[in-house]
Formats: sequence, C-alpha cells, structure tokens
Amino acid sequence: MSGSFIGSIFKVATFGESHGEALGAVIDGCPAGVALTVDDIQVDMDRRKPGTSKYVTKRAESDKVRILSGVFDGKTTGTPIAIVIFNENQNSKDYSAIADVYRPGHADMCYDEKYGFRDYRGGGRSSGRETAARVAAGAVARKILGELGVEINAYIKSIGDIEINSNDYSTAEPFLDECIKNGDSAGGVVECVVRGMPIGIGEPVFDKLDAAIAKAVFSIGAVKGVEFGCGFKNAKLTGSENNDEFYFENDKAMKKTNNSGGVLGGISDGSDIVFRAAIKPTPSISKKQTTVNKDGETVEISITGRHDPVIVPRAVVVVEAMTAITVLDFLLVGMASKIENVKKFF
Amino acid sequence: MSGSFIGSIFKVATFGESHGEALGAVIDGCPAGVALTVDDIQVDMDRRKPGTSKYVTKRAESDKVRILSGVFDGKTTGTPIAIVIFNENQNSKDYSAIADVYRPGHADMCYDEKYGFRDYRGGGRSSGRETAARVAAGAVARKILGELGVEINAYIKSIGDIEINSNDYSTAEPFLDECIKNGDSAGGVVECVVRGMPIGIGEPVFDKLDAAIAKAVFSIGAVKGVEFGCGFKNAKLTGSENNDEFYFENDKAMKKTNNSGGVLGGISDGSDIVFRAAIKPTPSISKKQTTVNKDGETVEISITGRHDPVIVPRAVVVVEAMTAITVLDFLLVGMASKIENVKKFF
Amino acid sequence: MSGSFIGSIFKVATFGESHGEALGAVIDGCPAGVALTVDDIQVDMDRRKPGTSKYVTKRAESDKVRILSGVFDGKTTGTPIAIVIFNENQNSKDYSAIADVYRPGHADMCYDEKYGFRDYRGGGRSSGRETAARVAAGAVARKILGELGVEINAYIKSIGDIEINSNDYSTAEPFLDECIKNGDSAGGVVECVVRGMPIGIGEPVFDKLDAAIAKAVFSIGAVKGVEFGCGFKNAKLTGSENNDEFYFENDKAMKKTNNSGGVLGGISDGSDIVFRAAIKPTPSISKKQTTVNKDGETVEISITGRHDPVIVPRAVVVVEAMTAITVLDFLLVGMASKIENVKKFF
Amino acid sequence: MSGSFIGSIFKVATFGESHGEALGAVIDGCPAGVALTVDDIQVDMDRRKPGTSKYVTKRAESDKVRILSGVFDGKTTGTPIAIVIFNENQNSKDYSAIADVYRPGHADMCYDEKYGFRDYRGGGRSSGRETAARVAAGAVARKILGELGVEINAYIKSIGDIEINSNDYSTAEPFLDECIKNGDSAGGVVECVVRGMPIGIGEPVFDKLDAAIAKAVFSIGAVKGVEFGCGFKNAKLTGSENNDEFYFENDKAMKKTNNSGGVLGGISDGSDIVFRAAIKPTPSISKKQTTVNKDGETVEISITGRHDPVIVPRAVVVVEAMTAITVLDFLLVGMASKIENVKKFF
Repeated sequence: MSGSFIGSIFKVATFGESHGEALGAVIDGCPAGVALTVDDIQVDMDRRKPGTSKYVTKRAESDKVRILSGVFDGKTTGTPIAIVIFNENQNSKDYSAIADVYRPGHADMCYDEKYGFRDYRGGGRSSGRETAARVAAGAVARKILGELGVEINAYIKSIGDIEINSNDYSTAEPFLDECIKNGDSAGGVVECVVRGMPIGIGEPVFDKLDAAIAKAVFSIGAVKGVEFGCGFKNAKLTGSENNDEFYFENDKAMKKTNNSGGVLGGISDGSDIVFRAAIKPTPSISKKQTTVNKDGETVEISITGRHDPVIVPRAVVVVEAMTAITVLDFLLVGMASKIENVKKFF
Repeated sequence: MSGSFIGSIFKVATFGESHGEALGAVIDGCPAGVALTVDDIQVDMDRRKPGTSKYVTKRAESDKVRILSGVFDGKTTGTPIAIVIFNENQNSKDYSAIADVYRPGHADMCYDEKYGFRDYRGGGRSSGRETAARVAAGAVARKILGELGVEINAYIKSIGDIEINSNDYSTAEPFLDECIKNGDSAGGVVECVVRGMPIGIGEPVFDKLDAAIAKAVFSIGAVKGVEFGCGFKNAKLTGSENNDEFYFENDKAMKKTNNSGGVLGGISDGSDIVFRAAIKPTPSISKKQTTVNKDGETVEISITGRHDPVIVPRAVVVVEAMTAITVLDFLLVGMASKIENVKKFF
Repeated sequence: MSGSFIGSIFKVATFGESHGEALGAVIDGCPAGVALTVDDIQVDMDRRKPGTSKYVTKRAESDKVRILSGVFDGKTTGTPIAIVIFNENQNSKDYSAIADVYRPGHADMCYDEKYGFRDYRGGGRSSGRETAARVAAGAVARKILGELGVEINAYIKSIGDIEINSNDYSTAEPFLDECIKNGDSAGGVVECVVRGMPIGIGEPVFDKLDAAIAKAVFSIGAVKGVEFGCGFKNAKLTGSENNDEFYFENDKAMKKTNNSGGVLGGISDGSDIVFRAAIKPTPSISKKQTTVNKDGETVEISITGRHDPVIVPRAVVVVEAMTAITVLDFLLVGMASKIENVKKFF
Repeated sequence: MSGSFIGSIFKVATFGESHGEALGAVIDGCPAGVALTVDDIQVDMDRRKPGTSKYVTKRAESDKVRILSGVFDGKTTGTPIAIVIFNENQNSKDYSAIADVYRPGHADMCYDEKYGFRDYRGGGRSSGRETAARVAAGAVARKILGELGVEINAYIKSIGDIEINSNDYSTAEPFLDECIKNGDSAGGVVECVVRGMPIGIGEPVFDKLDAAIAKAVFSIGAVKGVEFGCGFKNAKLTGSENNDEFYFENDKAMKKTNNSGGVLGGISDGSDIVFRAAIKPTPSISKKQTTVNKDGETVEISITGRHDPVIVPRAVVVVEAMTAITVLDFLLVGMASKIENVKKFF
C-alpha cells in the first residue's frame, strides 16, 4: 500500500491505525515563515472529535496534537512538519469474535486478500479514525490558504432524505433517532465552498482542479460520489441552460451564474468552487446481518460498540481538510504557469 | 501546465492542440512482450472519430495513428511507446472573430488568465480533440488488461432526460433533433463496467481505486460528476439497505448485491466495478449568447462550425480509455502488496 | 522544501531537526507479511549512534526507536510504518552566539536565503542528526531485501590519504589524533557492495539503477562524489581495457571482471554492485575561521561542541541505508517489466 | 521500463530507439510566454550531431527537429511541447549476426533478462542515439534559463590521460588516432559550470540540488562517476583546507573559494555550480573480444560500423542538457520555499 502520500509541492504523508499507538502526518513543502501553533490545528481536530453528541461515536479521545518538527520560533521553517496524535483509547476489548468475520460494507475481506492478513482492531487503517491525520494536515493547509485569502467551508447538505444546508442538523434528529432505534444508520451529502480562489489554478489535462479535488474527497472512506456545480443535474440541461454567461465588472470577466461550480476546463474561473460529496450510511450497524467468516462459514453479526449512527457531521471537516490540501498544492504549482510570474523571483 | 502526465508505473504523457500539427501520447512502463499493432489502437480511435453521424461533429479526420517507438517484431519492448496522430483538417478558417471572445462554458478566459494568452484555434489544448491521445493510450492499456482477463465496457446511460442503457441512442434522436433545431445541445450520463477485476487492487488511503478512477474520468472535459455503485442514492439509504452481504461460493467470499460498485475501502472487492459520469451539454452552441471579449466589451456570439450537439456518444470510449489507463497502473502497483507475491520473482 | 519524500513504490518520508522534539520516518508501500521488530531497526541505529569512540561526536543519545503504526502481530501490515526517535539531548545551550553567523562549509546562509530564517540550534534540519531517520527507514528496507536474498555492506575505503578497506580504522588514528590536536577534521571515502542482486533491475533512461543510487547517496550531507565500478579511473582506460567480457556458467551469462560496478546501461548485470562515495571533512572545526554574520560583519569563529572529527565511520551505515531504500524500491518497480511476470499474479 | 519520465514541475518524457521510426520528447510544465523556435533547439542538436569529425560516428543524420505542439505565435503556450526527430538513416543492415550476441560493455544481456527480448538494431533504446531527445528537451530548458539569467557550459576536462579544459581536443588527436588504429576507444571527463544561479535552490533532504544533478547526469549512458567542487579530492583535505570562508560584497555573503562546487547542504550557495562526469570509453570496438551469445556459446566479436572512437566530445552538450532540465525544474519548485514569495502572486 503505497497510497498514503499525496501532493506535488505541498506533500502530505499520513499513518496510523484505529487501535495502534498513534496516528499522524508529515507535511513536506510547507512554505516557510507562516505562524503556526498547535491551537491552529487543534481547533479543527475538535470539530472532528468523537463523543460530541449522541449521533456520533462515544469513543473518548481528546485527540491532542503534538508538533514534532518543522516549526521554530512559532513559524514554519520550510522543513517537514510532523504531527502526531497518540491514541488514548486503545481499549483492551476482545476482538477475537470479529477478527475473522467479514463485516458487510467494510473492507475486511479486501484487506485480507490484498495483504494476506489485517489489523482487525477497530478496522485498523480502514477505520474512520484515519481521517484524524487528514484533518491535522488540512488545518496546516488552511492556515496558509488563509494568508492567501482563500477560505474553505463545508456543511451538511442533507441527511437521508432531509435537506439541511447548514451544520445544524436538528431537523434530522427524529430520523436519526429512528435509525438508532432500529440499530441502523444514515448517510448524507456534504457540500463544500471555496471562496477567494484566484483565476487560473488547475493543471490540464489530467490534473484538472476539479479532478484533483474529486480524487482527494473520494479518498475519504464512505464517499461514493462527487459532483461540481450543477453536477449530475448538468447532464439533463441543454447547453443554453447550462452555460454561464460572462460580464465585466471591476475590470474582470465574471460569470452571471455558477453552474460550472467555479471550474472551467479544469481551471478555476474566479467564481466560488462548489461541490458535493455523497456519503454512504455507516456500515457498522447493530441490526443483525448475514455474512461469512474467513473459514467460509455463514455467520450472523450484530456490530455493537462505539459507532456513529451517521458519519456525515464529522465528515464535514474532513472534506474541508482534503480540499485545503489539494487547493494549496495547486496554488503552489500554478505559480510557474507563465514566465512573467517566474521572473518575479529571479 | 504540468498536468499532462499521468500514472505511477504505467505512465502516459499526452500532447497536442485541436489545430496544431499533431496529437499524441508517450506511454512509459508498458510491460514488454505484449503483441501490439496499429490496428489494436485504430479500432478504438474509430469509435471516437468525428463525422460518424449527424449528432456528432462533422470535422473530417481519419485519425490514423502511427507508432513511432517501443514496438519491435510486433511486440512491446518495455521502452516508451510513442503514438502520433497528425491533424489533417487544420482548416485555414479565420479565427480572428473568436480569438478575443470568451465563449460561455469554455475555458478561454481561464487560459488567458493562467498563461497570459492562448491558442484560440478550435479551443487549442482545451478542445475535445485532446481526447484522441487518451483513446490511443487507453487502447494500449486495454490490450494488456485483456491479457490479464480484465474487460472494460462503457455505454450511454442517458441523454438529457432519456434513459438509454446502451450505445444505441436512437430513442434520443427526436430530443437531439430538437436541440439542433434550437441551435442548442444536450448532455448525458455514461456508465462504465469493469469485469474480471481481481480482489485487492487499490492503494489506501489517498490512492483508493475509486478515487483514482474518479480523477481520471473527471479529467475528461465536460465531466461534472462521478459516482460509484448506488452513488448519490447511497446517501439516502440506511446502512442495512446499503451494505452488501457476503456469502461463499467456490471458496470465495462474494457479495449478494453490488451497491458498493465493486470497491470497498478503496480496494476492488471482486464484484464488477460500476460507475457513472455526468457529462455536461456541449458548450459550443449556435444559439445566441451574451458574453464579453478580452477588452471588456459585451458581445453576442453564435458559435457555428463543426460541433457535436451531444458529446456523450463519443465520450463513451474516452471514459473506457481513462479507466483502462488507471486500472492497469493500479494492477501493476498492486503486485507489491505482500511479500509472498514479491518472492515469486526473486 | 518538498524534498523529504523519496521512492515510487517503497516510499519514505523523513522529518526532524537536530534539537527539535523528535526525528522519524514514515514508510509507505512496505510489502505486508514481513516479520519486523524494533530490534531489527535498533541494530542499525546503534551502528550510527554518537558517542562510541573519541573520533565521533560525544553527544549522548540512546536513539531508541519506537514503531507507531504499520506492524501488527509482529508483521508488517502493508500500511504506513511510522518510526519515531525522540531527542533526549536537546541541551539548553545558548545558541545566540552562532544564531547569526554563517559557518564555513555549512548551509546556514543558504537556509536563510531560501526560507527567510532558520532553526539554528545544532544545524536544525541540515544537521547530520537528520540521518538517524534514514537509517531507521533503511533498516526496514534491509529486512525486506534480506528476505529476497539481497545484502548490502559498506565499509571505510579511506580516511584522508590512508587506505582502510574495512570498518576498523585504527591505522588512521594517528592522523585523526593530529586533526583533533589541530582543531581540524578529516574526510574519506566509503565503499559499498550490494550482493545477490538479480539481473534486470533499473529503469532506463532516466531512472537507471546507478543514477538512482547516486542520487540517494549524494543526498547524504557531506557526500561530494559518487563513482561506480572503476569510476573516474574508467575514464582513463581504453574500451578493450574497460569492457567486461562475458562467459557462461550455470546457464547464466557472467562477467569475467566487474569494471562496470554491476550496472550496464542502468540495469543490474548480475555482478555485485560496487560504488564509492567521497565524504568531505566535517565542516565544524574548532580551528579559527574567518566568516561573516547576517548583518554583514566579518567575524572569527571557533566551533566547539560535540562534533565528529571524522564523519566517515558513522556515514557507513547511512550509505547502506540509502542504498537499501533505493534498491528495494527498484526491485518492486522492476516486477512489472514483462508481461509474463505480471501474469504470475492474475 | 517506467523510467523515461523526469521532473516535478518542468517534466520531460523521451522516446525512441536507434533504428526506430523517430525519437523525441514531450515537455510538460514549460512556462507560457517564452519565445521558442525550431532554431533554438536545432543549434544544440547540431552540436551533438554525428558525422562532424573522424573521431565521432560517421552515421549521417541531419537530426532535424519538428515541434508538433505547445508553441503558438512563436511563444510557448504552457501546454505540452512535443518534439520529434525522424530517423533518416535506419539502414537495412543485417543485424542477425549480433542479434543474439552479448556485446561486452553493453546492456544487451540486461535487456534480454529484464524484458525477455530486445530491439537489437543498433542498440535500440540503449543506444547513445537516445540522447538526441535529451538534447532537444535540454535546449528548451536552456532557453528559459536564459530568460532567468542562468547559463550552462560544459567542456572536455580530459580524454584518456590528456588534460583538455576546453572543447578543442586537438592535443588528444594522436592518442585517439592510436585508439582507432588499434580498433580501440577512449573515455574522458566532462566538466560543467552553471553561472548565474540564485542562492537557495535545492530541496533537502533527498532532493538536494547536487543529488538531482548527479542523477540526471548519471542517467546518461557511459557516465560512471560524478563529483562536485573538489569532489573525490575533498575526501583527502582537512576541514580547514576544504571549508570555503565567507566574506561580504555588495550586501551579499560570498565565498572566497569554491571547493563546495556551488552547493552547500544541497542548496545553491551563489557560487558557480561546478561538477565533473567520468565517461567510460565507447564499448563498441573493432578489436576482437571474447563473449557469449544467447545460446550460451562462446563467440568472438569485432564490432564494426559507425561508432565513436571517443564519445566525450558529443557528450558535452548532453551533460549541459540534463543539467538544464534539472536546474530549471528546481528553480520552478523553489519559488514556493517561503510564504513571502508565494504572496507575490495572490
């Protein structure tokens, strides 16, 4: 598995299992001279933290981050920033019951086939807990984007069939209570908006900005779809309905509408970047399911423990994190697009 | 723009503008010893070729491929395979009228901002013609996948509001005729199925197989959304509805359903890989649109010329190509997942 | 600085400053199923450890490694292996005297220009202490290479003018004593031999095996030259003197001599891989030197503290580590060279 | 073989065999807006061209380059630049005699082992002819470097035992005549100087500037050693002899000497970058050699045909090309080192 490194200039490597000693990230290529403290990171960690309501896992983790390198006198030095989060709650629960069972909706079987065996404790590397490291790295990216005037905000678009359009999902609580009662779980959609993007970011033809964001967001466990602007609705429109017409304002070509979601031909067009991610329902449910174990026996399981009946609220900051990591990398790469830019340095 | 290279082991670089001298691809990392002829590539080129019906562009291009290197005695040698397609139909049309105009739905303005100027002839590098090089490279990947028992097929899922589910879209013709009459265009959805995938392909956490396919497909101009399995519908299901239960057959853990679209935790699960791509309506329409030019003047345009009223039929083979390139690369990377595999060689 | 990540399949990221909280490495793409313990790593760490003789730095560091992830039930899982070494000896020495001075032979000035400021405590990231993380990652690579029958051994070729050809450098001690007496330092040459290499490893034309090893070894601070086989002496030979003639033995084409150093055309040729690295004398010397400070003033400095009068003995294991990381990566990449190999999996 | 792509931002892919249809390069990430003509490239091609004296191969190739994409109105557009050189002189010589023989000093056997078979015509991809594509790409890099005030010049340091220090090697002619008479060949050393380098270029710890240049130059066939500054001589000096002291001039910290070769800690230090490459004697010699063929039979060969008795003069421009490609890539990457630089754009 060589897929835990991401990025071209602003690079991130993550590590860590659900019930291992620690999770963390190494960030390479972070520009020097940016003020950065543990608090800048902790604030996003706390948004993702388990145990904040009855609709998310009750696992008690403080998720305190430590910065091991790359920051000196309160500023990034340009050298790799290592961030580590020690797991406090590696409870000694006996996993032998599920060690050999392939939970439906989980990658247990895939890991066994790919690697020959797996760390079955709490899902190991395929646990949602892995996203803690993404959020830590994303917080660093977000700090730098802030210096450049770029802001990223995601929110719950819907849970199940219920439209939300904010991060207050109290209107979905009756539905979620019903899910909990049934030992079931819910999914939803997260929408994300990037404001303040300069025009011209994105690297056709394979590294289009929307393609790269899509990959980064798709790499979050449970994401099953991504769409920009009108997305799948675009496919039903005609060209004249879908095209965003241009007009001039303040010496800039602006779009009257934003069906494109802020990206044209894979390059940021100056409008807000807007996309949505479909998040499947938490696969760990206490409702009885039929499945098989490693030995080929049919078994019934009921997954109890500390699982989110809905993962969508906690996914919001993870979507922001992956977007921040990607957008920052592309901003740095994009500086070399034209020689007049390059000459500014030399 | 450093985004025209893709892949880790099976690498592809493409080049070429709509009205430049030639388009092409260089493929590096192609395993040696595979029988490969120009015909293997031409067959896919012909599926993408313009001029095959009144619903696609009438531009006359034979799109004959030439292999310049990397094949000897009818077999790949393991060295880079260069494929070139010379543009025959660089007509001498006067582009001065549109050279300074920002066509709605196109990346003209983005290119000007990013690079300072652009090759405006027929859209330059942002033209759909760029995909010819993708199809050529994809045909090579497909040939190798064939040797490994993996098969990729895409088809039209829908055009506008009309369900198709095949590559015969005659039921959509009245709608398309209407679009043409109105000087307008249509979009649609392409669905793609990968059969014969071994279990265990995909590199968590960032290079999940679905994430990588999503990026590759999103990099095709006009794609605005990608979803796997139940996709956005997943988000509305409960866990018990969405989870695919396992059973055993022929000593293998199989899934009763395929809501996951063949990927769990970013790793192929042995089912068919199934995904859909939303394709926006062709932005070039003859219907009058208001826009601006480079000098900030408001102008009206009606884009005439050889444009597809619907790009979906020709996108089918491009979706297959990008999928083939990605899946093959991941198959080659995946060989190193466990030491018992690695020992097979040494 | 985005240069702390290395590798294509077997990837390594390192982090850490001389006087920061910790150093470490994240290894991604390590094949699953390899037995790995802390001891496997510690044994190489101890070979590099400071304080082992009067000719190397007296800094007291136990360099105890901790594995934070990627190992379960004593075996690698295929997920990222994070290794951390906490700095114990971040002594509270006052660095203000050298914080602004550009030490000759050091990168102080370069870091200030590149990043705007630097972590001046003990050289920060440009300290030789950074190599601890390389050795940790190299030990993991070496463990896997061992499973594949590949063995890497380096030794001191020379110190100053004195030929050594082993890791016992007692014959150089009078020279080193003289250096210490003069407040001066010595350099030398390390030779490295890779045994058991299969034929066919290396990826022409840019990723030739010797080119990649050269880069990896050159990336060790203080290395100023690398040569394979006869190296610079090759340049003085004629073709008939330099060419290694082939003969057959045990159904294999073997070479009568090894002037090539085990690599022909960038591909391993089945002979031992043999190369040498020239290591400059430790730049930190107590002998008085004239230099400048940040404010442009001419100053004299005498660098006291815990510096190696000769770094060559401790560089031996670092050269091995970088070679191991590179060779393993290329072995894994090389499996995809021909279709008959690839078919072994699928 | 996935090793024919190089670079992070300024990326190059090359292709082509000695006796294939064409050689060429695709350059991605070239900044837009740089004036570029075929002549800019041809001038370097002509410096490398065969047939210019009796000491280099007599193969008649005009090596005329064609630019297929990426240039519009005489300027780079930021899209991939494809350059192709058609082989004119694919003579119909019967290669059957050498098709199965492993020529000493050549990679024939390595290719057969790695790929299962090889294009034996004139060495295929392992021919020195492959460097034509490098020179074409290097010429583009050099053009851009020129805009940034960076200049690269290489020259012959020595041929055999004879010091040259220029590109006029007439003093070596008696030695070369002797080689020719004996059916033998000679090697030598090329020295390269990069002038006008800004301080601060290079990406520690693995992508140090000298390490990257070393790899790029080592990737040229026949290079067996690379050293910077005093190189292997460094290893014999003491610290006080080797360290370059700093002084101030024009508000800049300058070095009194340049033993470092312009790189400290992997970062350019403002002095000229100076390095040397050892080039082995041409392995193709008419003098009789004993070797084996594929079937394990011992055979004698005398390699006749159009071979350079000394490759050093033609290697000069290839060394420059690889240096230019590398240095430019690092200049573009280095722009993101500090936040105050990044802010210049946004």
